[in-house]
Formats: sequence, C-alpha cells, structure tokens
Amino acid sequence: ELLSELVGFFQPKGLKGRRVVITAGPTSEPIDPVRVLTNRSSGKMGYALAQAAHEAGAQVVLVSGPTALPCPYGVLRIPVESAAQMHAAVMAETPAADVFIAVAAVADWHVVNASSSKIKKTPEGTPPALQFATNPDILAEVARLPDGPYCVGFAAETENLLGHAEDKRQRKGVPLLVGNLAQRAMNADDTELILFDDQGHRALPAMPKLQAARKLILEISGRLGR
Amino acid sequence: ELLSELVGFFQPKGLKGRRVVITAGPTSEPIDPVRVLTNRSSGKMGYALAQAAHEAGAQVVLVSGPTALPCPYGVLRIPVESAAQMHAAVMAETPAADVFIAVAAVADWHVVNASSSKIKKTPEGTPPALQFATNPDILAEVARLPDGPYCVGFAAETENLLGHAEDKRQRKGVPLLVGNLAQRAMNADDTELILFDDQGHRALPAMPKLQAARKLILEISGRLGR
Repeated sequence: ELLSELVGFFQPKGLKGRRVVITAGPTSEPIDPVRVLTNRSSGKMGYALAQAAHEAGAQVVLVSGPTALPCPYGVLRIPVESAAQMHAAVMAETPAADVFIAVAAVADWHVVNASSSKIKKTPEGTPPALQFATNPDILAEVARLPDGPYCVGFAAETENLLGHAEDKRQRKGVPLLVGNLAQRAMNADDTELILFDDQGHRALPAMPKLQAARKLILEISGRLGR
Repeated sequence: ELLSELVGFFQPKGLKGRRVVITAGPTSEPIDPVRVLTNRSSGKMGYALAQAAHEAGAQVVLVSGPTALPCPYGVLRIPVESAAQMHAAVMAETPAADVFIAVAAVADWHVVNASSSKIKKTPEGTPPALQFATNPDILAEVARLPDGPYCVGFAAETENLLGHAEDKRQRKGVPLLVGNLAQRAMNADDTELILFDDQGHRALPAMPKLQAARKLILEISGRLGR
C-alpha cells in the first residue's frame, strides 16, 4: 500500500498540466425502478487509469457508472447511471480535455418503454414486452469533435480479439485502441492488454491492472507529443 | 464499530441451535458473457439479517447474489449469480433449516437465448431479439415443502405497498411478509419495515438496517415457539 503510493509518487510526470477525461464501470439502463439492464464491469481498469493519470500529473475527471470502488485520490469523479447520463457528462467535459480514455462498458441499448413503477409479474408469468433503442456512441462522437482530445478506446472481446479490435479502432476513428479478452479481464486484478494503432498491434505481458495502467499512460503521453 | 459489536454480543439468543437460510442481493441473468439483466439491490438488508441471526445464536447460511459487501462474521456465504443458481443453493440448504428468509431481489425472468459469445452490435444498430422465461419462485417453493422451515418473505414495492404486500403473502403462502418502499430502502442504510401476517399489518419506525434486522429476528424467534 505505502510502497504503491511511493511508486506512484515517482511516476514520470508525462501528463503534467494535461486534462484527462476517463469513463469507467458499467452503465445501468432502467427497465423499471427496480430492474436494470447492465454489463459485467468492475470498473477496476478505468479506476487504475484514473489513478495512473493523476500520478502522471494530469487533472483527471472520472465519469463513472455504478461501482463499489473508492474514488482514487486527487481525481474528480462524476457518478452516472445510464449511457445517456454518461454521454451528457462526457460531452460537457471533453471539449476542454487533452485526452479522452473510454474504458466504461457502456450498454449498447436502452429500454424505450421503461416503466416508472415496478412492473408486476402476471399470474401467467408473461414477461414484459421491452422495446430497445441504440445508445449514443460516446467514443466515436468525441473522436469526431473538431480540435477534440486524443482518444483512446477499449475493446473487451470474448473471441477473435485481433479482428474485432482493429475493426473497432477504425469504426470509432481513434488513434489508439486497447484490447483485452473479456473472460480474462472481467472482475480480475490482472490484465493482458494489446495496443492497436495505425502501425499494427503490440501485446503487453499480463500484469496487475495498476501497473498496466501506468504503462498505458506512458504510451499515451509519449504519443501526445507527436 | 466496537459498540455495535458489543451490542451484537448482548443480543438475546432466541435462535440458539437454529439453522437459518437467508438470500440476499440481486440475481444477475446473463444475456451474453458481458451483458446481464439484474435488479437494483445492494444486499444490505439481507446481510444485516444474516448478522443479526448470527448474533441471536443461529447457524446462518447466506445465499448471496453479486454484491460488494463483506460476509458478516460467523456466517457461511454461498455466492451465486443467476436465479437458477440461487434456487439450486436454497433447495439444497432449506430441508435442514428452521427458518428461511427470502430477501434477495430475484430476477423474475431470465434470457432463454443467452449467447455464449459477446453479441456484436450490427451497423444498423438492431437490438438482439431476446426471449424471456419466468424464473422459479424460490420462496413459494420452499413454503410448500412438507416439514419445511418457517418462511419469511420480503416485498419491495414502489406503490400501493399495503395491497401488494398482503397479496404477495397469500400468493407465496408464507406466515410473515415484510414490506418496504423500494424507492426509500434501495441502497439506503435506513429502512422502514411493515410486517404482514394473518393478524394484519404493523409498521416499525424508520431505523438503520442492522437495528431493523435485530428487531425482525426477535419477531421471528418469538413466532417460532408458537
């Protein structure tokens, strides 16, 4: 704990004076006041990146879906629940940002006909007819901003990571995309990241998420100068 | 903290030698390896009851959906995710139990066509066609067991609590049902409980969940003798 703080204190200050916006955790899409549609995401990787960016000297805004994690020291957290709330918070914060790192597992859909009172189970057990609509693509929208921040995406995939991640990088229009295998990374403390950019891809060895976050922040600060 | 432990130590031992099974938290129903359907439930009330039952001298088994809470001292926790897993764990534990308290916010439906790999978003953004099926009614099933435990249910409602809760008590066939207002109790540390039995209903004042749990355990142990 103390050692980790010391190590953090002596991290290179590659982001000094930079403003970094990071999204983390899942989003939670209401079905009714009790039921939600969400993603399995502990928020650990996004919180580790927020800590690492702070250690590197940045002003950090962490837009976080519901998680049980404590806010890293020195980081400003904006708590949100739904993808629409996350979208609004990010669009308010990113125009002034130098870096945007989208780590949150944003739900792809929300329920259009969410109920304001708890849906009762019918005696026949008929499930409610839910209508879904696509959520805004926060990362792609920030990447399209004129004079927007340097954008980094994350892709958690369960299979064909190499193909899906590079596809995603191009579809979102971001210079750097970080891939990992969802079944390995989810709720784990270790992670194995693969960096995708226009030069190709490069795998980092498996390591604790905070250590991986520090490596990634080094990569990002190196790219900002270019 | 220390005071709370002392208070706990001196609670009446009304459940000495009794075996109590409690469910707590939400259940999480997979849509694919990343996405889930779940309920807003912190698990706090169920965990407080597990602690209070242990303080009262019981052997406690806590069948818990995903929560961020630490397991109360002296309590055996069985972690589960889906309603089907919770059902299996409860049906294995309750035949030997004296009391069953169903606090978990069990999902009413699960996704029949859950995917074993992450569902890709289509370019058109078409949401996946999800098919839902009703989950087993764990409380009603335990209440129907011959020589089964004394059963206590919980009802979190957003409106018409009095009507819905007494309906639920009769439908589930349990002697005691505890109602609360979902919007007041969810993720809160305080709660306001209303007890429903064949004599009618009685409201307890608002108080911290652990204190409410101790009161409820007293009520339950008093009823076991009858």
